[in-house]
Amino acid sequence: MSLDALFDPRSVAVVGASADPAKWGYWLASGALAGRARRTVHLVNRRGGGLDGVPFLPGIGALPTAPEHVVVAVPPRQVRPVVVEGLAAGARCFTVITSGGADPAEERELAALVTAHGGRLLGPNCMGVVDTTTELRLSWGDFPAGSVGLVSQSGNLALEIGRLLARAGQGFSRFVSLGNQRDIDAADALDALIAHEATRVVAAYVEDFRDGRRLARTLAAAHAAGKPVLLLTLGRSEASGRAAASHTGALVSARSVVAAVCRDTGAALVESAGELVDTAVLLAARHRRDRTHPGPRPEDHGHAPTPPLRVAVVGDSGGQGALAADAFVARGLDVPLLTEATRAAVSAHLPSRAGSGNPVDLAGAGEADLRNYAHVTRALLDGGDTDATVLTGYFGDYATANPEQADQECEVARALGAAARESGRTLVVHTMARDTPALTVLRGCGVPVYERIEQAATALAHTARLDRTVPQPPPALPSRPSGRGAPLAADGGYETVRALLAGHGLDFPAAAFVTTADEAAEAALLRVGYPLALKAMGLAHKTEAGGVALGVADEAGLRAAFARMRTATGAGRFVVEAMAAHPHAVELIAGVRYDPAFGPVAMVGLGGVTAELLADTALALAPLTPSRARALLLSLRHAPLLTGWRGAPPVDLDAAADALCALSRAAVAHPELAEVEVNPLLVHPGGAVALDAHGVPA
Amino acid sequence: MSLDALFDPRSVAVVGASADPAKWGYWLASGALAGRARRTVHLVNRRGGGLDGVPFLPGIGALPTAPEHVVVAVPPRQVRPVVVEGLAAGARCFTVITSGGADPAEERELAALVTAHGGRLLGPNCMGVVDTTTELRLSWGDFPAGSVGLVSQSGNLALEIGRLLARAGQGFSRFVSLGNQRDIDAADALDALIAHEATRVVAAYVEDFRDGRRLARTLAAAHAAGKPVLLLTLGRSEASGRAAASHTGALVSARSVVAAVCRDTGAALVESAGELVDTAVLLAARHRRDRTHPGPRPEDHGHAPTPPLRVAVVGDSGGQGALAADAFVARGLDVPLLTEATRAAVSAHLPSRAGSGNPVDLAGAGEADLRNYAHVTRALLDGGDTDATVLTGYFGDYATANPEQADQECEVARALGAAARESGRTLVVHTMARDTPALTVLRGCGVPVYERIEQAATALAHTARLDRTVPQPPPALPSRPSGRGAPLAADGGYETVRALLAGHGLDFPAAAFVTTADEAAEAALLRVGYPLALKAMGLAHKTEAGGVALGVADEAGLRAAFARMRTATGAGRFVVEAMAAHPHAVELIAGVRYDPAFGPVAMVGLGGVTAELLADTALALAPLTPSRARALLLSLRHAPLLTGWRGAPPVDLDAAADALCALSRAAVAHPELAEVEVNPLLVHPGGAVALDAHGVPA
Repeated sequence: MSLDALFDPRSVAVVGASADPAKWGYWLASGALAGRARRTVHLVNRRGGGLDGVPFLPGIGALPTAPEHVVVAVPPRQVRPVVVEGLAAGARCFTVITSGGADPAEERELAALVTAHGGRLLGPNCMGVVDTTTELRLSWGDFPAGSVGLVSQSGNLALEIGRLLARAGQGFSRFVSLGNQRDIDAADALDALIAHEATRVVAAYVEDFRDGRRLARTLAAAHAAGKPVLLLTLGRSEASGRAAASHTGALVSARSVVAAVCRDTGAALVESAGELVDTAVLLAARHRRDRTHPGPRPEDHGHAPTPPLRVAVVGDSGGQGALAADAFVARGLDVPLLTEATRAAVSAHLPSRAGSGNPVDLAGAGEADLRNYAHVTRALLDGGDTDATVLTGYFGDYATANPEQADQECEVARALGAAARESGRTLVVHTMARDTPALTVLRGCGVPVYERIEQAATALAHTARLDRTVPQPPPALPSRPSGRGAPLAADGGYETVRALLAGHGLDFPAAAFVTTADEAAEAALLRVGYPLALKAMGLAHKTEAGGVALGVADEAGLRAAFARMRTATGAGRFVVEAMAAHPHAVELIAGVRYDPAFGPVAMVGLGGVTAELLADTALALAPLTPSRARALLLSLRHAPLLTGWRGAPPVDLDAAADALCALSRAAVAHPELAEVEVNPLLVHPGGAVALDAHGVPA
Repeated sequence: MSLDALFDPRSVAVVGASADPAKWGYWLASGALAGRARRTVHLVNRRGGGLDGVPFLPGIGALPTAPEHVVVAVPPRQVRPVVVEGLAAGARCFTVITSGGADPAEERELAALVTAHGGRLLGPNCMGVVDTTTELRLSWGDFPAGSVGLVSQSGNLALEIGRLLARAGQGFSRFVSLGNQRDIDAADALDALIAHEATRVVAAYVEDFRDGRRLARTLAAAHAAGKPVLLLTLGRSEASGRAAASHTGALVSARSVVAAVCRDTGAALVESAGELVDTAVLLAARHRRDRTHPGPRPEDHGHAPTPPLRVAVVGDSGGQGALAADAFVARGLDVPLLTEATRAAVSAHLPSRAGSGNPVDLAGAGEADLRNYAHVTRALLDGGDTDATVLTGYFGDYATANPEQADQECEVARALGAAARESGRTLVVHTMARDTPALTVLRGCGVPVYERIEQAATALAHTARLDRTVPQPPPALPSRPSGRGAPLAADGGYETVRALLAGHGLDFPAAAFVTTADEAAEAALLRVGYPLALKAMGLAHKTEAGGVALGVADEAGLRAAFARMRTATGAGRFVVEAMAAHPHAVELIAGVRYDPAFGPVAMVGLGGVTAELLADTALALAPLTPSRARALLLSLRHAPLLTGWRGAPPVDLDAAADALCALSRAAVAHPELAEVEVNPLLVHPGGAVALDAHGVPA
């Protein structure tokens, strides 16, 4: 069922309406009444009364016609009777502000009741819903109108985002407060915002991702539809995990997993409400052609470096221009030397001493004639050697000190907006002014204005990253995994896991599992060859227990090692394994771990004894494709080791990628293992081979 | 000469005064007149006229008494005659707004003229000077009064900082615009601000550090005097280096060097004007006892980890509290689980479902009774298990939606301020409100208020770092270095540099420099021993050229290697060097490089073939002390490799530190070498030995 009745019902009933401005029932009722020109509004309160000339009716049954959308703001115990009454009257959309019952089970049962009737339920325990394009305001607080759609699991955060948007001259197209998500969840709400014409940017605060794969599909679909999504979530600290557990009861996904999903689906993972708003304002301001051609076109570079966004900086102060350049470069943007042609075009408007290389220093040219701001900026935008221009410093504030300049400053602001529009490139202004007429003109022309240079830098960096992503829908998971749940030994079940991984195509050295010295010697002779490794099975820490002998050279050595090892460890089962001797090999760690929301997540990282110190790992949803696996490998900080470091031959990247794919296929097929790890995975110019592996039962 | 005449002259003369508000001469004259109650003000313009009833006199010679401070705003060619006239009239302090001549030489000559008369000169090419505590306003633009002293090489940036301070309810005690620093430089100006009672926080924007060691001494002295210094500079990008070269003609110091100096002197290196203001506001707001006891007392931990600042977070929304915790932890602060006692004290004011572990979720307690904000915050401040409390979310905005709550909200704000003051701990408020009466009350009580949670996080993180630093004055440099400037060979002069470093106490393996195979064999037999390394001298890339043979086992091998190497490289000189065989050795790189402002800077980093990928290095001004060298080693990300990684014995840290000291002493004594590098420096459980070294001539 579509969510039209949620956002634009022909009629709405507020049950629990109140005339007391200290109560939710007042805000919902007066908000509903604000849409009276567009829809029928009924107010219900069994104790009677009225608001704004509209009488409170005693119950839904008393309404002259069935309400399409019922907002419920009554004490928890009365929620179910109201919903039952509404369903009986023909209502099919319910927004429940209060808790919907004594416990989650009651709430789930309530949602099931509604959906069984073909209806939908928002909440319970939510802050309601707003659609400024349909005059629907069923919430508390101000929701300034604009082109940003917001889905939020926190009501106060939505209010904070609204304030910040309003200060930047923006606002909401739609706002959906998720509450306990008993029916309508984050992905449903996002789908509705992505499809909404007037919503140009979609923002979401989500604590509990539920079906993470479905959410990832939604994010990729949004990017494909040209609707940028900005995602704010928690989970960077233990403390926020505690907060989430207490707030929504959800297990928090590792932030690194969410970051990997955003990277691959083309969503922007932001770190704060402020960063979300700064980026949303830039994205919303861009003209459509701007959005699709904001610089180099996206190509599928995987995780390999793409050309950075090139920014021209123009300031009326050398210091501010330099600090702007530093802020941009620190966030991965490029502030390149301008071409001779652009420098010449710019210099025509500057005093001879002004720097024009980039940053461009107006060096008083702005004070001499305000129109130089527009002339220089237009020359930079039209030059074509950069993708975006940032004006930093004083512009916007001339009229404050000298009101006689007000008209001219606004005229220059219009010229700046025209230059951006005509060039099809991005213009951003950082200014020490706030709320001056010239800034209002700039915003009206679609030029974002920031109070701090780092806001401009972060917004441009996010935008550049989004523009350069070719989104990939998340890989599908099999509906019936083949796993059988074989119990694993204390060593993480090397024998079991090895067989499982080898069965999916991962290479291991030749090996034989044996129980006696004679079997070991025979296996060495017939199947494995010398030198070999002998390892005891079933030990949690086999190296420390004396359960590993490497480089065993001959049968005598093997029998001696076997005897020592049996005595030292008491093990009953051993593996005889060929020693891998691969020049120019690089040790990797590879694994797959189940995330509570996103399912199996593949990891690859630099291995070796200092792996923890290197902390050089990359993640993606499993199963991997070969190209994704390759991209993950190349995204490592130490990737140069793989591609021919200091004259060494490159490792076989295809084989390395295939090994990661095999591991991820095996893990996906065996959800009974919460975690599978290969350590080390030796990759070398001739292939990739797993030297050890273990699993952790779910 | 003290700078009293700069900041609080008994009389001031503005030469180049104007009645036209579009001109600098107007702003200087009207600014000077604003201080008429405190000092005599003369206005000079040879063309006559007047302002505010004060006539413009034709020249300094026409003044009835000598002006103490002369502000010069005349065209460049007239600057020198005005200064000469001023000196003749007895003036001893000059602020020159315009350029002071046709070129730097003329400006230096002008400064020399003033100082030869025992006077001081600010500028030329500066924006003047302001002291809001003495009603001195000799600049352009608004300078709100407050307790932040600013020294800046950019005028517009000072205006931007002023705007941001004013929006946060703060302002300037003093402002000094440095201009071209021909006499008064950044360190002079900082000294004057540090000594200034009303200046509680010192801020500086500096592009050109001049005598970096002197500046570092000033920074350390400021910390010792309890005056925090916040430093903003450029040089994070090539582009800002270009800007600086064009703006001030200065060579930019590497940002990593400036960061090391700030770390050791206890200054905060900030990244933007906004970050500077956010931090200054927090530092200025703290009460004196707060400043000295803001958490664990500082001890000399060197670079080893110190206990992080512990923050309690209280929010009226689970989402905002969680995001706050994430923002704090991401910046190195701790959001610990609260003690049972504090949780109990907090829970007394909360509904039962509220989370009280930290973050504390008010969960509606604030709406139920605004006073709960103060009760809960006081319980957290008094609990003593955290050093600072941050209130995040809605507080400050109640009166906006419901004006009837205005008085109570202000009363609660006062109670919050009292709780902070009485606890002696830090309270910070993040709110979605802006400029409401309750926020004015908070600021008045010394509680910093931020619009974005990341501002609070960054300010707290900087403050915590400052509080935890034991500043170290920079090491002194010898006034007469012993260097002689021996020319270096194409290999960086291994033979020369080795001798020089060994002379300062650095260990090398036994070696002999030889020219024939017979000499090599004799040296091997008598002095070096097998196995050994043979290396050709004088080659820029000896390994690639076939100029290195390692592990040579005996004389036959040595003679064969020698013959091959002579043919392959054409070298005429060789070294025969004992092979170092040290189990559990770690390869480091160590070096010293001259910075244009700070002189010799010591570097140590993880070595090996992947050193560039690891990028794990640390810097400090040379020469090093043993404790500083040790601290540098322990600050490396890979420091665990040095202290006993995975059961290996620790390396000899004292020997490693001594080796770094020896290297830095040698480099300081030989400034004819712009750079000296030892790579690798092998550190092991038994000592530290240099296996290769080279130099780069200055």
